[in-house]
Amino acid sequence: MKIIVINGPNLNMTGIREQSVYGTCTLADINKKIADKCEKDGIECDFFQSNCEGALIDRIHSCHKNYDGAILNAGAYTHYSYAIHDAIHSVDTPFIEVHMSNVHAREEFRHKSVISPVCKGVIAGFGHNSYLLAVEALKGIIEK
Amino acid sequence: MKIIVINGPNLNMTGIREQSVYGTCTLADINKKIADKCEKDGIECDFFQSNCEGALIDRIHSCHKNYDGAILNAGAYTHYSYAIHDAIHSVDTPFIEVHMSNVHAREEFRHKSVISPVCKGVIAGFGHNSYLLAVEALKGIIEK
Amino acid sequence: MKIIVINGPNLNMTGIREQSVYGTCTLADINKKIADKCEKDGIECDFFQSNCEGALIDRIHSCHKNYDGAILNAGAYTHYSYAIHDAIHSVDTPFIEVHMSNVHAREEFRHKSVISPVCKGVIAGFGHNSYLLAVEALKGIIEK
Amino acid sequence: MKIIVINGPNLNMTGIREQSVYGTCTLADINKKIADKCEKDGIECDFFQSNCEGALIDRIHSCHKNYDGAILNAGAYTHYSYAIHDAIHSVDTPFIEVHMSNVHAREEFRHKSVISPVCKGVIAGFGHNSYLLAVEALKGIIEK
Amino acid sequence: MKIIVINGPNLNMTGIREQSVYGTCTLADINKKIADKCEKDGIECDFFQSNCEGALIDRIHSCHKNYDGAILNAGAYTHYSYAIHDAIHSVDTPFIEVHMSNVHAREEFRHKSVISPVCKGVIAGFGHNSYLLAVEALKGIIEK
Amino acid sequence: MKIIVINGPNLNMTGIREQSVYGTCTLADINKKIADKCEKDGIECDFFQSNCEGALIDRIHSCHKNYDGAILNAGAYTHYSYAIHDAIHSVDTPFIEVHMSNVHAREEFRHKSVISPVCKGVIAGFGHNSYLLAVEALKGIIEK
Amino acid sequence: MKIIVINGPNLNMTGIREQSVYGTCTLADINKKIADKCEKDGIECDFFQSNCEGALIDRIHSCHKNYDGAILNAGAYTHYSYAIHDAIHSVDTPFIEVHMSNVHAREEFRHKSVISPVCKGVIAGFGHNSYLLAVEALKGIIEK
Amino acid sequence: MKIIVINGPNLNMTGIREQSVYGTCTLADINKKIADKCEKDGIECDFFQSNCEGALIDRIHSCHKNYDGAILNAGAYTHYSYAIHDAIHSVDTPFIEVHMSNVHAREEFRHKSVISPVCKGVIAGFGHNSYLLAVEALKGIIEK
Amino acid sequence: MKIIVINGPNLNMTGIREQSVYGTCTLADINKKIADKCEKDGIECDFFQSNCEGALIDRIHSCHKNYDGAILNAGAYTHYSYAIHDAIHSVDTPFIEVHMSNVHAREEFRHKSVISPVCKGVIAGFGHNSYLLAVEALKGIIEK
Amino acid sequence: MKIIVINGPNLNMTGIREQSVYGTCTLADINKKIADKCEKDGIECDFFQSNCEGALIDRIHSCHKNYDGAILNAGAYTHYSYAIHDAIHSVDTPFIEVHMSNVHAREEFRHKSVISPVCKGVIAGFGHNSYLLAVEALKGIIEK
Amino acid sequence: MKIIVINGPNLNMTGIREQSVYGTCTLADINKKIADKCEKDGIECDFFQSNCEGALIDRIHSCHKNYDGAILNAGAYTHYSYAIHDAIHSVDTPFIEVHMSNVHAREEFRHKSVISPVCKGVIAGFGHNSYLLAVEALKGIIEK
Amino acid sequence: MKIIVINGPNLNMTGIREQSVYGTCTLADINKKIADKCEKDGIECDFFQSNCEGALIDRIHSCHKNYDGAILNAGAYTHYSYAIHDAIHSVDTPFIEVHMSNVHAREEFRHKSVISPVCKGVIAGFGHNSYLLAVEALKGIIEK
Repeated sequence: MKIIVINGPNLNMTGIREQSVYGTCTLADINKKIADKCEKDGIECDFFQSNCEGALIDRIHSCHKNYDGAILNAGAYTHYSYAIHDAIHSVDTPFIEVHMSNVHAREEFRHKSVISPVCKGVIAGFGHNSYLLAVEALKGIIEK
Repeated sequence: MKIIVINGPNLNMTGIREQSVYGTCTLADINKKIADKCEKDGIECDFFQSNCEGALIDRIHSCHKNYDGAILNAGAYTHYSYAIHDAIHSVDTPFIEVHMSNVHAREEFRHKSVISPVCKGVIAGFGHNSYLLAVEALKGIIEK
Repeated sequence: MKIIVINGPNLNMTGIREQSVYGTCTLADINKKIADKCEKDGIECDFFQSNCEGALIDRIHSCHKNYDGAILNAGAYTHYSYAIHDAIHSVDTPFIEVHMSNVHAREEFRHKSVISPVCKGVIAGFGHNSYLLAVEALKGIIEK
Repeated sequence: MKIIVINGPNLNMTGIREQSVYGTCTLADINKKIADKCEKDGIECDFFQSNCEGALIDRIHSCHKNYDGAILNAGAYTHYSYAIHDAIHSVDTPFIEVHMSNVHAREEFRHKSVISPVCKGVIAGFGHNSYLLAVEALKGIIEK
Repeated sequence: MKIIVINGPNLNMTGIREQSVYGTCTLADINKKIADKCEKDGIECDFFQSNCEGALIDRIHSCHKNYDGAILNAGAYTHYSYAIHDAIHSVDTPFIEVHMSNVHAREEFRHKSVISPVCKGVIAGFGHNSYLLAVEALKGIIEK
Repeated sequence: MKIIVINGPNLNMTGIREQSVYGTCTLADINKKIADKCEKDGIECDFFQSNCEGALIDRIHSCHKNYDGAILNAGAYTHYSYAIHDAIHSVDTPFIEVHMSNVHAREEFRHKSVISPVCKGVIAGFGHNSYLLAVEALKGIIEK
Repeated sequence: MKIIVINGPNLNMTGIREQSVYGTCTLADINKKIADKCEKDGIECDFFQSNCEGALIDRIHSCHKNYDGAILNAGAYTHYSYAIHDAIHSVDTPFIEVHMSNVHAREEFRHKSVISPVCKGVIAGFGHNSYLLAVEALKGIIEK
Repeated sequence: MKIIVINGPNLNMTGIREQSVYGTCTLADINKKIADKCEKDGIECDFFQSNCEGALIDRIHSCHKNYDGAILNAGAYTHYSYAIHDAIHSVDTPFIEVHMSNVHAREEFRHKSVISPVCKGVIAGFGHNSYLLAVEALKGIIEK
Repeated sequence: MKIIVINGPNLNMTGIREQSVYGTCTLADINKKIADKCEKDGIECDFFQSNCEGALIDRIHSCHKNYDGAILNAGAYTHYSYAIHDAIHSVDTPFIEVHMSNVHAREEFRHKSVISPVCKGVIAGFGHNSYLLAVEALKGIIEK
Repeated sequence: MKIIVINGPNLNMTGIREQSVYGTCTLADINKKIADKCEKDGIECDFFQSNCEGALIDRIHSCHKNYDGAILNAGAYTHYSYAIHDAIHSVDTPFIEVHMSNVHAREEFRHKSVISPVCKGVIAGFGHNSYLLAVEALKGIIEK
Repeated sequence: MKIIVINGPNLNMTGIREQSVYGTCTLADINKKIADKCEKDGIECDFFQSNCEGALIDRIHSCHKNYDGAILNAGAYTHYSYAIHDAIHSVDTPFIEVHMSNVHAREEFRHKSVISPVCKGVIAGFGHNSYLLAVEALKGIIEK
Repeated sequence: MKIIVINGPNLNMTGIREQSVYGTCTLADINKKIADKCEKDGIECDFFQSNCEGALIDRIHSCHKNYDGAILNAGAYTHYSYAIHDAIHSVDTPFIEVHMSNVHAREEFRHKSVISPVCKGVIAGFGHNSYLLAVEALKGIIEK
């Protein structure tokens, strides 16, 4: 069982500035926690982050036939990137949409996700724990 | 540590008809799985289901000072019950919004949740596993 | 052949005040006319009225496997109760949406019905005769 | 007692192609059923069909003082022909709006009727039976 | 002269949690103040609170012929319960809409009231004093 | 100097039913008044009425090079016939939009005219006098 | 018979700059033409212009019982001044709404008039001739 | 304790024409009643009315440090004058928004108030009594 | 292989006035070019033009079983004729939507086509060449 | 070179109350800074402030032929005064729109400016420095 | 004569997964067909594909002075990339917008193209044949 | 004091084509002017341009702790890139939004900026001078 965690724009700044919203640990710290859990659960896990919509799409394409599941925090692209919507739709890997903050309790523009319809499910609002829950959720989907 | 799982309108019909959307196990079956997990995790867990908005509000009020966390699948009330929104806001118990189906991949009216802004987080699209993940998420919140 | 006539909020006030809109006969009078017609047509007919959304949902659920058809005047819930929409969708009894007044000739908010998509058909604007026509329509559906 | 059944655009194609939506009998078959019922009920009944908005308006005008009631299935004109709205409003014959399919369960643009406000009532979703129910409804209106 | 004060969803939590918005006194305290004023003014006053839309409608119906005036704080139902709108419209008792907070200075969804059109007037923003002013207003209406 | 007065759908019913809105004189009466004024002013004037959008477009086309000006009351087509908009745009005859009633004081759908942008000007609300004023206006435009 | 011509904001700049839209003659020139026509027709005519919404309202109030008719070009206030709407509604003098340009062929914001519903009629698009036509229209209204 | 009652556009016409909406007494009569009540309650009260948005803003500014409270019926400016919104926000005197009619039961454009968010509360629908209730409400606010 | 080219409202005026938009050749000239190409490609081709929505619908119906493909430039009906939408849907001939101008670069109302969803494809913006490309496209569809 | 600085509603209250938004210096202080800069740059500068829309329009008109440039902070009128829009359009003096606060980071209604389209440019968010930058910008425009 | 075919996001996945929508041949296969046609027509043709909005813009810029025409399938960027809109507008090469599927028959968000206004024309719905038709269309444009 | 000037999509084409909108000087020319001003003012200034949203985000991130201020012309990304919005929000460098043209006088889609809320201020409409004014504005912000 092999999965990938893909982070989109500005997630690389996690723990550097907006600490009141996302907590103080960096993306590297978060990835470490995910890696620990995966190792414990016997899952192989890759990590990718980019601020570039095109690079994210390329990486999503590369999931096809290569990963059993993917966890995607598309950052602000979540709200307008129909290109990422199409990318997820073009591969057969199941995707889970993840957000650290509760996007529905923030600005209006964050209430709409254009990628939800092509994801298996959504987990939002639990800080870095959102990723760990997504790993757990992915296990349920893949094992089915 | 004591939690409650509250289910709203039509969830009592789970496993009886719309099996293609929610799977074949009944609400009782789902509650059994949640109870099993809670027991294993040393969590005391109560269950409540009602089709009545007022009864749901009464039960939400009763959480105040009595539960460490609550899991709420408000069914279709999710999309228009500002009264439930206010009820959650009127108690200090942390709430997690849960949906078995991926509401964002269904009809337009299910894309908006009026209760998300007063919940800690949202988990949607993982069938009955959504509830188990919510228990896991609640543990993370309460332990913090 | 067994059917049920379900009336929602404020229909119990029919013939008591808004007589210019709904005519002068009470809900009991209307039910009597329906009962007479059903008796003549050899149909068993039950009646239910409640102002409570939850009670209406409970009664709709009880139709499952128990009635061959149902006639529903959901009153103002027609315009916003997605919970009733889901309730109708969760049972296999065919439902007919009925209104005594021509809702499309009244206030803007009455022009939209959230339950129409899960009903077999709609009959509106014929006063108490709307119910009798619905019985007739139901016969056509059930006999098919 | 003399009535008219007016059918608008594309109803002449009934039973020729979209059989899954409207059933297999043609407009002639449907008119035959209506004629049979009318004969049985002692009602004189005329029939008219046109794909032309202007021809429909002309025929609606001709109802003035000449018919006791009219049944109108305006097809897609239902959703935008304010000219037909005005035509119905310009005569004193009571009109009933009829649809064979449940328009509210189909595409968004079919959810709005611009002619409902000037009709006595609406019957939709019962296949060709919608017309027979409308005859029944018209009897109730005219006899009053 | 006999009036009733009807409180809707979550008002029973007044003074228990959201104290910054509604002040610290409980609904019982507020009702006591209203009762004191009524006694001083020679008005008979009943009180009712429910979180259930249907129970509120039942109570509004019971006002017909039984009360000279009614004060209604419908809580969040104010913003979407067309069923309560219809209920008020179905009785001949004059209703006054009351809110403790200034609803127009809060969230967008609270800016629209669906019950205002069937109430005599609106009083909002004066804390528990809103109720006392409503009693005063009702006196003016009834005495006319 | 030669002009034409074109009347659209339902104007042929003027003076027959909706007398409270348009007055009691028929279209023939109105045309007589226009003819009288034109004769007095030395203007040759033709008249045309049709309920058919296509026939109106044909007649508008025929104005090209043949009339110095045209007066158009497009009835309800005013509000949605972009085809008539294009027809007016396709000829070089100046058009004046005319309405007998004050369309802006009636239903919402009458507040928008899709043909105004291609007309020289608009005259509305003066009963049959609207046409006479339009003749006067046309004289001003043609003489320029 | 005594009338008044009221011009709103920026009309005093007519003929000074935007000549391509309104022509080259100034407001004084236009008023002269109106005065000439009125004299010929035996009508007493006053003139008023102000850029101030309040001053326009004051002048509209002063029409009450003092003028048989009024011609109002409210300039850009036409599109948002509900206060002028109310002012016209508060007097019994009949008002005609006038525009020199065809407002419907210009920017979107000019397509909506908030004062039309309280005016007898509208004349737009005929340059300074719009005022003369309005005098003619007013004669028809007053003589009735 | 010193307060001011500010009336906006068209309130000076109260009792002169639209008597069915506002009753028959004039603004002077209403002010007399307010003055009487204030005298009885030991409150110093000033009065101001203007149809000019700018004059109203000037007067609102003059409240700063000079009045303990203000009652404002901004007439139609209520619905679009963000400048008055800002004016109220720029002074520290508490303002109460008042309307004689129930604005929510009238035209759509009267349902939105742009000044509510900067007022302490709103009282609408009680005729001239709305002002007296506002004095009462102001006493409650100032005494706190 | 037999096809038909159907042109809607105002296309008969092509080359007569709006030459800057559609070029200088008339509809007859365009049809000649299409006929030439068809002859060269061994395709039988009929032509039809009407300004009447109903006549266009009749002609579309006549395509059923009679033509292998159809090219439709519905003119302004493109933007609101749901009746033409339904007509195309009621026959089994494949339709191609054609526009000479780039409708998306013109007025807002031309950006929406209600007939696109029932056409195989759309070709717009290439002047009379749009028709020739459509013939080419039709060949590809029919040959498949 | 001669310019004018025009300030609209509530700017006269600058530095008196909302100090957290606009800073502590008064309008007089700001004008002093502008005057100093103008004197240093050899520019003649006049100042005007009014809360009255009409007075602002009058002053804008007076710019015609009299000033080489104008700086306008129209306060809340920015968001709805189409009359000021027209006033600016009616003179040939170049206008710069200025705001002290960043209007786009405040309430929704401040995000739209109806005067921007007729101004040369916009400067917003730099406190009183916005005015000094506008003087600089105006120099660039006039010198061109 | 030299042209370029630019493909945007996810087109590189053509023929790999969504075969029911776009057919089974890959982008390489399609390009081969285009190359064959171009060779036959004596046109030099380059190809470019990228999932990155910025890379697409760079390539569009490079068309300036270098290509006689361009064919662009911008994938999902079609629906929101105003940056690509501006890029096309910044070069003098004529662009044709191409889609393999009939975008208007798919999801709502695909009905709007932000790049159409700056393209010469649009061809959609003909599978890979859309590209070949575009080459043909480009020949017509360039030869003119 | 060290600042950066960041230019987004299509700004590299400045002076190459759309000269009527942005003037004839190239981005290099503009940067030269900025560099000259900065040198005179003793400010260190870096320059960056990219058409790629991701590259712009990377560069914005690199401002954190490294620059005292930034000037950003995000081109068309201004209107939809919430990812750039978040990027600016994730660093502590103050940003100024700059546009050469007056975006509010151009197409509708350019009227909304999604990045304004996280910028200190906005300067638009002054050609290349917009950048120089921004440098001046930045000095004011940094020196504070």
